[in-house]
Amino acid sequence: MFVYTRKAHYHETDQMGVVHHANYPKWMEEARVAFLDELGVSYGAMESAGVFSPVVHLSIDYKRPARFDDEVEVQLAIAKYTGVRLEVGYTFFNRTRNELCATAASAHCFVKDGRVVSLQRALPAAHERLLACLREENAL
Amino acid sequence: MFVYTRKAHYHETDQMGVVHHANYPKWMEEARVAFLDELGVSYGAMESAGVFSPVVHLSIDYKRPARFDDEVEVQLAIAKYTGVRLEVGYTFFNRTRNELCATAASAHCFVKDGRVVSLQRALPAAHERLLACLREENAL
Amino acid sequence: MFVYTRKAHYHETDQMGVVHHANYPKWMEEARVAFLDELGVSYGAMESAGVFSPVVHLSIDYKRPARFDDEVEVQLAIAKYTGVRLEVGYTFFNRTRNELCATAASAHCFVKDGRVVSLQRALPAAHERLLACLREENAL
Amino acid sequence: MFVYTRKAHYHETDQMGVVHHANYPKWMEEARVAFLDELGVSYGAMESAGVFSPVVHLSIDYKRPARFDDEVEVQLAIAKYTGVRLEVGYTFFNRTRNELCATAASAHCFVKDGRVVSLQRALPAAHERLLACLREENAL
Repeated sequence: MFVYTRKAHYHETDQMGVVHHANYPKWMEEARVAFLDELGVSYGAMESAGVFSPVVHLSIDYKRPARFDDEVEVQLAIAKYTGVRLEVGYTFFNRTRNELCATAASAHCFVKDGRVVSLQRALPAAHERLLACLREENAL
Repeated sequence: MFVYTRKAHYHETDQMGVVHHANYPKWMEEARVAFLDELGVSYGAMESAGVFSPVVHLSIDYKRPARFDDEVEVQLAIAKYTGVRLEVGYTFFNRTRNELCATAASAHCFVKDGRVVSLQRALPAAHERLLACLREENAL
Repeated sequence: MFVYTRKAHYHETDQMGVVHHANYPKWMEEARVAFLDELGVSYGAMESAGVFSPVVHLSIDYKRPARFDDEVEVQLAIAKYTGVRLEVGYTFFNRTRNELCATAASAHCFVKDGRVVSLQRALPAAHERLLACLREENAL
Repeated sequence: MFVYTRKAHYHETDQMGVVHHANYPKWMEEARVAFLDELGVSYGAMESAGVFSPVVHLSIDYKRPARFDDEVEVQLAIAKYTGVRLEVGYTFFNRTRNELCATAASAHCFVKDGRVVSLQRALPAAHERLLACLREENAL
């Protein structure tokens, strides 16, 4: 499990006095980028190599709202990886309030030259790192 | 079915050249507010009456990306309404490209004084209008 | 003077209960794109021709906050245009509250292949339309 | 001078391939909140005490665009503080590219119960800390 920690910014609040729900997909993306970085898979380098990884599915269950200045952990793990599809699971834990904030999932494909591709072919090194990470998770 | 139409703004694009996926929940919210308005349920008036309607669940399936300046219809219908929970379904149709853009769903509860309440008790008139809308949808 | 009208969205509010100040540059951009469209200068077509028009300067004076669901007019006029630099002035007028909301200004250059260019050379037709608009404004 | 460091997120980019200009006011706000925190003036506590500090003026000069994953320092200093008005200056320095990214300024008033107030009266402790910080800056 990878942990990305983040404070809730003022500009992320809405007039209900909580972090607006549309910010959660952004936090998921930030966590994903940081996680891939740690794996040695730079998202920037992937795009420079012409490989994009769009979100094809997103779901979020909001449990308890985060508020301005709360410190929130986004805990992330690979749920499934097939070479052509990556599924990621997320738990938002509010450290300031010591409570579960949200759970979420995203799914991604890989695209090169406008076509869906297998990451295994497009970027074998990245593929190997994702596989290794998944094996490690399963071993726990 | 209610239809909310909207152009994709430049500030909504990302470096993949498409509307960033975190904007879709915002479009859903805009469509919901416009839909409730048409029903005669002003979201602003609800909040002035102390009733908030947070998102408790969100899911989106991204089919084909919207791009800058595309005209996108958000088609919206009530999927379920129990008096304490409202579920809404959405279809994003890209009129500029004449293609399905995304499908989505959101679920909402009602909160007053920090506690989950039944809309039927908290705001009977709004409750009646949601019920009437649901009956009308089912009659079709 | 060109007028772009827009409702303030819920997701644009912050916990102060007003439209967050970082949204104003977005409204300015939306107004600019709509204005250029009306002039017959499509921003999308400009970019397809390889010409980008980044913001080089921005200033905003916030007078009275816009709130959720307020209808706001962004009144826009070219302040200066030299062929290499475009300056635009904006007045935000809140129609719902019948009050001045903000005044603002932006300045833009034109970039092609990573270098600052003259719009006159890069896109003569767009240049002519901006000049014609400026002449018309001055004649008023 | 206070320094707030931040990576540029993917969701902050636009289709020009750079951080969209409307994000800069957000970074300024994040830097301000962190700076006030370090001074011992919690923005959250200010608001809990009923004192808000809206932005009344904003200006930004964009020099060189920040890009995805760039590490950007927002260097911040109080430019002026009169007890009723706070002016802050900012320099965005891109550490990844080792270049000046932008310079900016913001001005703020203080509001309590919907009226502009002097911070000196509304929150004397916060006032003293801002004064002390300004004296220290001037002594350098």
